[in-house]
Amino acid sequence: MDIKAELKKRADFFDKELEKFLKGGEPETLYDAVRHLPLAGGKRLRPVIAMISCEAVKGDVINVLPLAIGLELIHNFTLVHDDIMDQSKLRRNMPAVHIKYGAPTAIIAGDLLFAKSFEAMHKITGDLSIFKNVEYGLIDCVRLISEGQQLDIGFENCKIVSENDYLEMILKKTAVLFMYASEAGGILGGGSSEQNRALNEYGKSLGLAFQIHDDYLDMSSDEKTLGKDIGNDIRNGKKTLIAVHSLNNAKGEDKKALEKIFGNRNATDEEVKEVYRLFNKTKSVEYAKITAVDYCKKAKKVLDVLPDTEAKKILLGLADYSIQRKK
Amino acid sequence: MDIKAELKKRADFFDKELEKFLKGGEPETLYDAVRHLPLAGGKRLRPVIAMISCEAVKGDVINVLPLAIGLELIHNFTLVHDDIMDQSKLRRNMPAVHIKYGAPTAIIAGDLLFAKSFEAMHKITGDLSIFKNVEYGLIDCVRLISEGQQLDIGFENCKIVSENDYLEMILKKTAVLFMYASEAGGILGGGSSEQNRALNEYGKSLGLAFQIHDDYLDMSSDEKTLGKDIGNDIRNGKKTLIAVHSLNNAKGEDKKALEKIFGNRNATDEEVKEVYRLFNKTKSVEYAKITAVDYCKKAKKVLDVLPDTEAKKILLGLADYSIQRKK
Repeated sequence: MDIKAELKKRADFFDKELEKFLKGGEPETLYDAVRHLPLAGGKRLRPVIAMISCEAVKGDVINVLPLAIGLELIHNFTLVHDDIMDQSKLRRNMPAVHIKYGAPTAIIAGDLLFAKSFEAMHKITGDLSIFKNVEYGLIDCVRLISEGQQLDIGFENCKIVSENDYLEMILKKTAVLFMYASEAGGILGGGSSEQNRALNEYGKSLGLAFQIHDDYLDMSSDEKTLGKDIGNDIRNGKKTLIAVHSLNNAKGEDKKALEKIFGNRNATDEEVKEVYRLFNKTKSVEYAKITAVDYCKKAKKVLDVLPDTEAKKILLGLADYSIQRKK
Repeated sequence: MDIKAELKKRADFFDKELEKFLKGGEPETLYDAVRHLPLAGGKRLRPVIAMISCEAVKGDVINVLPLAIGLELIHNFTLVHDDIMDQSKLRRNMPAVHIKYGAPTAIIAGDLLFAKSFEAMHKITGDLSIFKNVEYGLIDCVRLISEGQQLDIGFENCKIVSENDYLEMILKKTAVLFMYASEAGGILGGGSSEQNRALNEYGKSLGLAFQIHDDYLDMSSDEKTLGKDIGNDIRNGKKTLIAVHSLNNAKGEDKKALEKIFGNRNATDEEVKEVYRLFNKTKSVEYAKITAVDYCKKAKKVLDVLPDTEAKKILLGLADYSIQRKK
């Protein structure tokens, strides 16, 4: 089975629905700012996971489209606001919304994406108590994502962060929306409680594997040289699982060197290389790789309770893909 | 009847509920930032209007508390984000959230207030289709408020704005939440369609009267001198009904002078006084006063369909208060 093709087929279908949903609106500048990021493509992982989870419990994917749009818009709303906070200039190879439209319009565009996400959710049909339950889940995701983003900001001022604190942060900032996507997809597909619980667990492990593999990708390099991004992450003291593990496990002089260089914006290229060497000496790069693989295994294991379908195969393949992808 | 005392009685009751609702949460810094503005007091007009509207259709005010909290948190979320956009330093005589906690945490705190508003709304009990309908109304308010805020930002770059465009802006930015507060209060109180429609009209006229009276207050001065705020508004080219009316009705040399000075950040005190003189020459200050009085009358007239109750008297008194208050 060609996993990438299966994911793309659903993403393409979703894209058409999203484009329809985001048409029109005035003032035009504001709605252009609203559309800027969501219509710039992307893997559409969250909506696609919701769609496949619905299929995996033999539900009709049409029922899950309002949720799929809601998920993607919440994800995009957080990206628009995060880029303002982080002063990031680029996103998906385009100027970030606040760069193109200015910070005030970008703040409003994010707020409006949030509102439009719930506008989409209101198109969920069927049992109203299921609607209320599923909609509440998305509200709770925004709460958790906000807490995760604040934790991430707080980490910038911490010398050392424990592995547990780091995992709590990525759970809230990234994994909760995956958990919710797969579980809510199952609920709207008519899955049993047991199946929906399994889909929730799947999303959690998948989201963690995905984020940790991201950390790993940022820190590994095919050319055996240190790319610009790695230098930046080390100079900015970005708390990845690799950095957190190394800072917690280095001893003696190594620990002192790490604490001195990591997060020092004026670190020399030589110093950056030294940190990278220490990350490997503490086996932290390897540790991140192993941890991602473990979460991938967990994600696949919990799917045992699902019936054997094409959709289940795609979910299994997606778990492997999450730790094999090169970007 | 002592209108102010009746409003305060309900605001005090509401404050206790709000404080309970906003207790706790981690990271503590984020939740402190979330509580900063909502727990700094204020008139609580929107929740109080919802409560009195519920009473006016003989409903139980307990049923309207989740809505009341939802309304106040949406209002506060927009204030937190607006203060970042406008770079305002003070709010309710305290440092604005972004001044005290920094812009990144203030953006997240605003987002979280938005999410917590809908968390509160989910505590609405009774018929689920009424819940869904009322909740959708609040989502739509956020859309309209976002559009209104964007219109307001756009006005900064316009020499002249038509009176209709100005009214559309304050309708969206301010009046829609009043409209929604009174109508949704009626719906949750079990009001008839006719009563709820009247409450919607009441909220609309009240909101417009309120905002135009605000414009009038900012531009009038007991001491027959021009205070600092008036000078600032003229130098910043703030589009109030008074300014809009004057710019559209001044002729010949007067029009040229207005266009030259209004919005000129380097205008001298003499020039500011000249603009103020022209605002009066075009009878624009008077026009704003009359317009606010007209909306107040409209607000009171539509309440004819409500039964005679104490609550109705308070709504009538509130309409008068909206154009009589000195601050």
